[in-house]
Amino acid sequence: MTAALIALDWGTSSFRAWLMDGAGRVLDELSAPMGILAVPEGDFDAAFESWLAGWLAAGPDLPIIASGMITSRNGWVETPYAALPVDVETLAAQVMPHRTRQGRVVHFVTGVAQNPADGLPDVIRGEETEIIGHLAASGAREGLFLLPGTHSKWLRVRDGAITDFSTAMTGELFALLSAHSILGRLMEPGPPQPVAFDQGVEVGRKGDLPLRLFSARALPLFGRLPAGAVSDYLSGLLIGAEMAAALNGRDTSGGLTIVGRGDLAERYARALTAFTMPAAIAAPDMARHGLVEIATHAGLLA
Amino acid sequence: MTAALIALDWGTSSFRAWLMDGAGRVLDELSAPMGILAVPEGDFDAAFESWLAGWLAAGPDLPIIASGMITSRNGWVETPYAALPVDVETLAAQVMPHRTRQGRVVHFVTGVAQNPADGLPDVIRGEETEIIGHLAASGAREGLFLLPGTHSKWLRVRDGAITDFSTAMTGELFALLSAHSILGRLMEPGPPQPVAFDQGVEVGRKGDLPLRLFSARALPLFGRLPAGAVSDYLSGLLIGAEMAAALNGRDTSGGLTIVGRGDLAERYARALTAFTMPAAIAAPDMARHGLVEIATHAGLLA
Repeated sequence: MTAALIALDWGTSSFRAWLMDGAGRVLDELSAPMGILAVPEGDFDAAFESWLAGWLAAGPDLPIIASGMITSRNGWVETPYAALPVDVETLAAQVMPHRTRQGRVVHFVTGVAQNPADGLPDVIRGEETEIIGHLAASGAREGLFLLPGTHSKWLRVRDGAITDFSTAMTGELFALLSAHSILGRLMEPGPPQPVAFDQGVEVGRKGDLPLRLFSARALPLFGRLPAGAVSDYLSGLLIGAEMAAALNGRDTSGGLTIVGRGDLAERYARALTAFTMPAAIAAPDMARHGLVEIATHAGLLA
Repeated sequence: MTAALIALDWGTSSFRAWLMDGAGRVLDELSAPMGILAVPEGDFDAAFESWLAGWLAAGPDLPIIASGMITSRNGWVETPYAALPVDVETLAAQVMPHRTRQGRVVHFVTGVAQNPADGLPDVIRGEETEIIGHLAASGAREGLFLLPGTHSKWLRVRDGAITDFSTAMTGELFALLSAHSILGRLMEPGPPQPVAFDQGVEVGRKGDLPLRLFSARALPLFGRLPAGAVSDYLSGLLIGAEMAAALNGRDTSGGLTIVGRGDLAERYARALTAFTMPAAIAAPDMARHGLVEIATHAGLLA
């Protein structure tokens, strides 16, 4: 098998790279907790050359494709956003080549903007690639997709194209409230408390979040929630509130699919059981699949 | 006029004290930004003796009454909560005497707990005294009351008694998001932006807060909100969301009264105009009125 593509998924908190053959099979893989804000002096050229030195020496002419927050204002090159609706062809047509200091060309997948004159704007960078990967891998052309994260994203896909999306700052809110608010002061570490998490989901899903948050302080004050369970209760409360808002009046035809792995994806899947809404969990590595798919449509693998 | 009462309103962020005659007229007044967390080494006895030395020397036997967070776990003495419903008689009957190191007796007004078996618990400390003060000063016996603050409180009064209440952590949330979140990064200082505030209220009042917060980042990203207006927009968004939740299905008979002064009370009053709900603004110093009222009913002024 001959190497035919280098693909990068470079986000806020992590860096992943794959060396692949022409059929998208993985020949080698690298990952590091080196999100775009962790790159020394913001020198992306240097980081890229150094981390991938082996692959670049063996295949100096390999096409390179990248997606994620690496194309944001704090990233390597800020690319314009693609406008909705967006499918694999749209993204492939708008891939943006950038010549590095070493003369290599990196093809950046742009983020996507939603900016209706009569509504609120929103943006994604990286999630569009994961969705494209999932659509290609699963054959799905329809559905509602949830990508958990510090900022989780809810995306609607119709006829193979992303048509609209929303961002929820739930993960960031949870971190802030735990670290800096009065709610964090009563938290004690402990083993996972799924019952407290479910209790939080039940409260959060009723809506009116501004009036429910304080329960994460008042419940332990009255001995109705152990200090070791406050964190999971708050997590459930916020996730429940997000889900209630996100599912409120939204078209769920085609079903709901969670694209993500790990603890956070599991929390969302668990919370969904309170909504009598089954969810599928996407196969892993959808970013890689999406990068191959977009590279193929962009003629980089031809 | 002879001094007859020393009254203290000692909260999380400030200390206020009044020297009054038997009719509740103010003879002298002290205030300091010395909330309970700012008292050196938590030595409330020493702070009290030192700040009020003049009054105490002139009137060593004056009755002393105090309310606010001073009766919380982090305060001078933690008092139990009174149970709902609560009126001036209930509070007067449960005033809790405490002997200081210097042998003086301070009469603490307890906070109030709402702890229904089938619902979420909540607590107030200090707001009950302000409401009692307002009811006495205005003659009102009915209504919905909003007390703005780091944690704002919504209280329902029926037939002269507080019957239920809710806490919204809006002020704390605004401070956290401004100081620590991605939303704060696009904020720039500037003059007040009432139009941006109103715009935030309009978005916030639609509910689904988890999905609206990110607009405080996306709007400036698209040049649809100046960096100098992000702070007021976010303030409006959070206050609008709080109000929508607080007014949702709530009994507003007797009207809505805002008990509070200053910038925050003005923001809430302004936000209310979007809800086609007129609000009265209570006269100032309701805590002092409430302390006199409770002291009178407790026989301290007899």
